[in-house]
Amino acid sequence: MKKINPTIILVRPQLSENIGMTARVMDNFGLSKLSIVNPRDGWPNKKAETSSKHAIKIIDKAKIYSSLDNAILKYDLVIATSNRKRFLTKKSYNNFNIFKKKIKNFKNIAILFGPENSGLSNKDLRLSNFIFTIPTAYSNKSLNLSHSVSIISYELFNFNHDLIKNNKNQNIYNNKVDKRELMIFLNSLINDLDLKGFFKPLEKKESMIDNIYSIYNKIDLTKKELQMLWGMHKKLKKQPKS
Amino acid sequence: MKKINPTIILVRPQLSENIGMTARVMDNFGLSKLSIVNPRDGWPNKKAETSSKHAIKIIDKAKIYSSLDNAILKYDLVIATSNRKRFLTKKSYNNFNIFKKKIKNFKNIAILFGPENSGLSNKDLRLSNFIFTIPTAYSNKSLNLSHSVSIISYELFNFNHDLIKNNKNQNIYNNKVDKRELMIFLNSLINDLDLKGFFKPLEKKESMIDNIYSIYNKIDLTKKELQMLWGMHKKLKKQPKS
Repeated sequence: MKKINPTIILVRPQLSENIGMTARVMDNFGLSKLSIVNPRDGWPNKKAETSSKHAIKIIDKAKIYSSLDNAILKYDLVIATSNRKRFLTKKSYNNFNIFKKKIKNFKNIAILFGPENSGLSNKDLRLSNFIFTIPTAYSNKSLNLSHSVSIISYELFNFNHDLIKNNKNQNIYNNKVDKRELMIFLNSLINDLDLKGFFKPLEKKESMIDNIYSIYNKIDLTKKELQMLWGMHKKLKKQPKS
Repeated sequence: MKKINPTIILVRPQLSENIGMTARVMDNFGLSKLSIVNPRDGWPNKKAETSSKHAIKIIDKAKIYSSLDNAILKYDLVIATSNRKRFLTKKSYNNFNIFKKKIKNFKNIAILFGPENSGLSNKDLRLSNFIFTIPTAYSNKSLNLSHSVSIISYELFNFNHDLIKNNKNQNIYNNKVDKRELMIFLNSLINDLDLKGFFKPLEKKESMIDNIYSIYNKIDLTKKELQMLWGMHKKLKKQPKS
């Protein structure tokens, strides 16, 4: 199955840093197509370039439009993001499971983000298939523009990841100690503790030993770590030369 | 069912805007506790306040520390975020399902984010229970600091949302040791090993100490288990009566 690579469309963005940061986080999550409708501070834009860091290629290839209508012509699915309650009959969702179901079966997808101060206008929403609201805490719904893009990009990355469904669940060989090695160590440790009179009162000895086993079995020790524990143990019990 | 509200700890952050943006996105997703270790541009900081927008209360209440050790004393689970490959034995995950399983049963959780240019140092990682890497596209792993916080905060918001939804899912707090208790034990252990000449050759001392930290931080010790380790340790190093 082919990965999806929706176009992020920034509509009348105001801050150049937000354009750059948008490109950067798109690239972090494997998206590459950016369109911009009427950026307030013009184009090309040095600040946007700088703040995009290693994603300058996305800035360089960004498509600039003077109207949203022109920007969305080629898409078969357009999703408008918004955090405002709208009195429109347009469908609105705020659940990424639904979002992911909705984008299946579409090839050319665009996702719209409005200007920082006011968000998308009702007119901007006209040609969108549905409105999506990123779920947030009730008390503060005002996400920074590039943060909104970060969450959407991240979820699209997850979507693509699930698509690929790689069943090459590789076991990375971690060189863990086996139970035999651990047991030899624990026997030695317990024996030394016993000689020093650690297990008191005697009737608690077994449960104390249970606890020691429990502690060291929780660690998932590697062979190297066990070696270190051996070294520490031997050193600690060593008597000073007289 | 009680929501979790982990503390976000920014370690030596460089850009004030990132501190403000971090507070803003924390608030978007219902987090409220911010600690900062040695912010480069000092504190209080006007730029951080401005860029936090409606989350100024998080900036106002942020706790400032001059050392990471002091910042994490009271936490029983400390997660270090990193995108670098480390040559440490510390556990590392990059899957949020595992992340969410790991944070269950802990009450006092801190999540560390390193400085923008270099990330967390190996020494910063010593007392963390595990490393978490936000999954990203292979070609560009360098997330902006506040974008990293946005993804983590968003997933914690999802976690809390799910908690409430299936409220059968009870958090059982297991009486885990906090970092202060662990640090006191490890300091004593390392000190005793040092006195016995364990750390040889000297140039390996720091990495040997890293390993000791790593081993004991993997255990998720309960208070009772730590007590037992103390007992064992004291007994082992005790000299016989002559």
